[in-house]
Amino acid sequence: MGCTSRIVHLVNFKPVNVEKISIIKIGGGIIDNEVHLASFLTAYAAVEGKKMLIHGGGKLATKMAEDLNIPQQMVAGRRITDAATLKIVTMVYAGYINKNIVAALQSKKINALGICGADANIIKAHKRINATTDYGFVGDIDAVDTEKIVQLLDAGLSLVVAPITHDVMGQLLNTNADTMAQAIATAISSVYDVSLVYSFDKKGVLSDINNNDSIISVIHPENYSVLKDSGQVNEGMIPKLDNAFEALQKGVTRVIIGDALNIDQLIAGKAGTTIQKNNN
Amino acid sequence: MGCTSRIVHLVNFKPVNVEKISIIKIGGGIIDNEVHLASFLTAYAAVEGKKMLIHGGGKLATKMAEDLNIPQQMVAGRRITDAATLKIVTMVYAGYINKNIVAALQSKKINALGICGADANIIKAHKRINATTDYGFVGDIDAVDTEKIVQLLDAGLSLVVAPITHDVMGQLLNTNADTMAQAIATAISSVYDVSLVYSFDKKGVLSDINNNDSIISVIHPENYSVLKDSGQVNEGMIPKLDNAFEALQKGVTRVIIGDALNIDQLIAGKAGTTIQKNNN
Repeated sequence: MGCTSRIVHLVNFKPVNVEKISIIKIGGGIIDNEVHLASFLTAYAAVEGKKMLIHGGGKLATKMAEDLNIPQQMVAGRRITDAATLKIVTMVYAGYINKNIVAALQSKKINALGICGADANIIKAHKRINATTDYGFVGDIDAVDTEKIVQLLDAGLSLVVAPITHDVMGQLLNTNADTMAQAIATAISSVYDVSLVYSFDKKGVLSDINNNDSIISVIHPENYSVLKDSGQVNEGMIPKLDNAFEALQKGVTRVIIGDALNIDQLIAGKAGTTIQKNNN
Repeated sequence: MGCTSRIVHLVNFKPVNVEKISIIKIGGGIIDNEVHLASFLTAYAAVEGKKMLIHGGGKLATKMAEDLNIPQQMVAGRRITDAATLKIVTMVYAGYINKNIVAALQSKKINALGICGADANIIKAHKRINATTDYGFVGDIDAVDTEKIVQLLDAGLSLVVAPITHDVMGQLLNTNADTMAQAIATAISSVYDVSLVYSFDKKGVLSDINNNDSIISVIHPENYSVLKDSGQVNEGMIPKLDNAFEALQKGVTRVIIGDALNIDQLIAGKAGTTIQKNNN
């Protein structure tokens, strides 16, 4: 038999000079607070190189539901996205918040393009299937179109992504912004050297939720299990950290969690909590 | 003196094989009616070649203002866009309507990208200056970025545009969708052979508003002045027709006004009202 050519697949292999990109998720009290949001956007505009912003909706959707007298169903601390709630999050996240961020960034000379997952078919999802609870119109992500994202970034556009996806059958879906940031970061790590930053209104992952200076500077698999078991890491932080470890396993170069108002220091690795794939 | 080279500018000159594009505006009762909107989108998806959709908001913004108990100020039949109303139109037009159209088109294999004028800095506007009336956050268009639109279209994306613009200083503005369609059609007529279609819930420009079959098949400058003077053309139609004539003067190839549920016949010039630049 002749010699056949072989393609060697190297997991997470990237050439040395691959372009860097920062994927920054903002959430929590930053979105709700006009002054903090404006400060964040000024700092974000100054971040060098390619960048994408993924935003949540903070409490603005809850406030809008109250204003419209739409009761919010919660099951085990999670919001059920019924049809009326889906309409609200689509309006508030993909309309109000997204377009105001885009306009603010344009004023700072960042050519922002605001999208949700349905736009350009960037993120395909399916309605969550759960044996015990119907979460309603909640989307779990199936695929990210890396090629289209690269094409838009290469057109000089800085993407601003609202956490709404679609099922490619015409149905919009509400998707967790942390998960969305991780899925995008992971997908485009085949092309870029990706830093994923989860930024919010705390200085990092805290060992004492009441002390904003009790920052755990590095979390790796070994101390993570100790921190989890001891209950030292706040329960709400665990999905974010699980997302962070998954991103690192799947090719993202670095994950940092910290203060949205200190974004330049976070990206430089000089503040916040760095999540590491290995213990050293 | 030697012979210097001269560049001859031919107004509205286009090469013979220039690519065609359809700019389709939908408004009126189509947006408000789920069944009609779905029928329109099926027909729109089947339109061949490059295409862009510009949508208004119908009565959905008014309904949302009612639901939120936000009083709407009207001056001489025109809505004043105060800050609360701007928030509503941003949510409803750029969020709810835009993203639902995008998701519906994706289900029909059209790779739609939903934007407003702030996205990718496509449309720059300024807050309307009026000596007697403050219209609030209403935007009059200054510039359309043809190059960026062409770049997005060439990336295989079908743009769906909500009638919100910005002033490049961070302020979103509410802009008339008919005017927006005309401004986009005019701008990109330097690159494409543009058909501009104003589609709504009537069969065309009617000589008798109560008879949907009284379609005026052709309007040119000569019969337009007669139709206007005699009051035969409904007052609400005049800004649309003025927009149409302006588009033709500035390089758009054809303008058709007619039934959104008959879009293929409109584009083929077999239905609706055709607006002509000249009398013959």
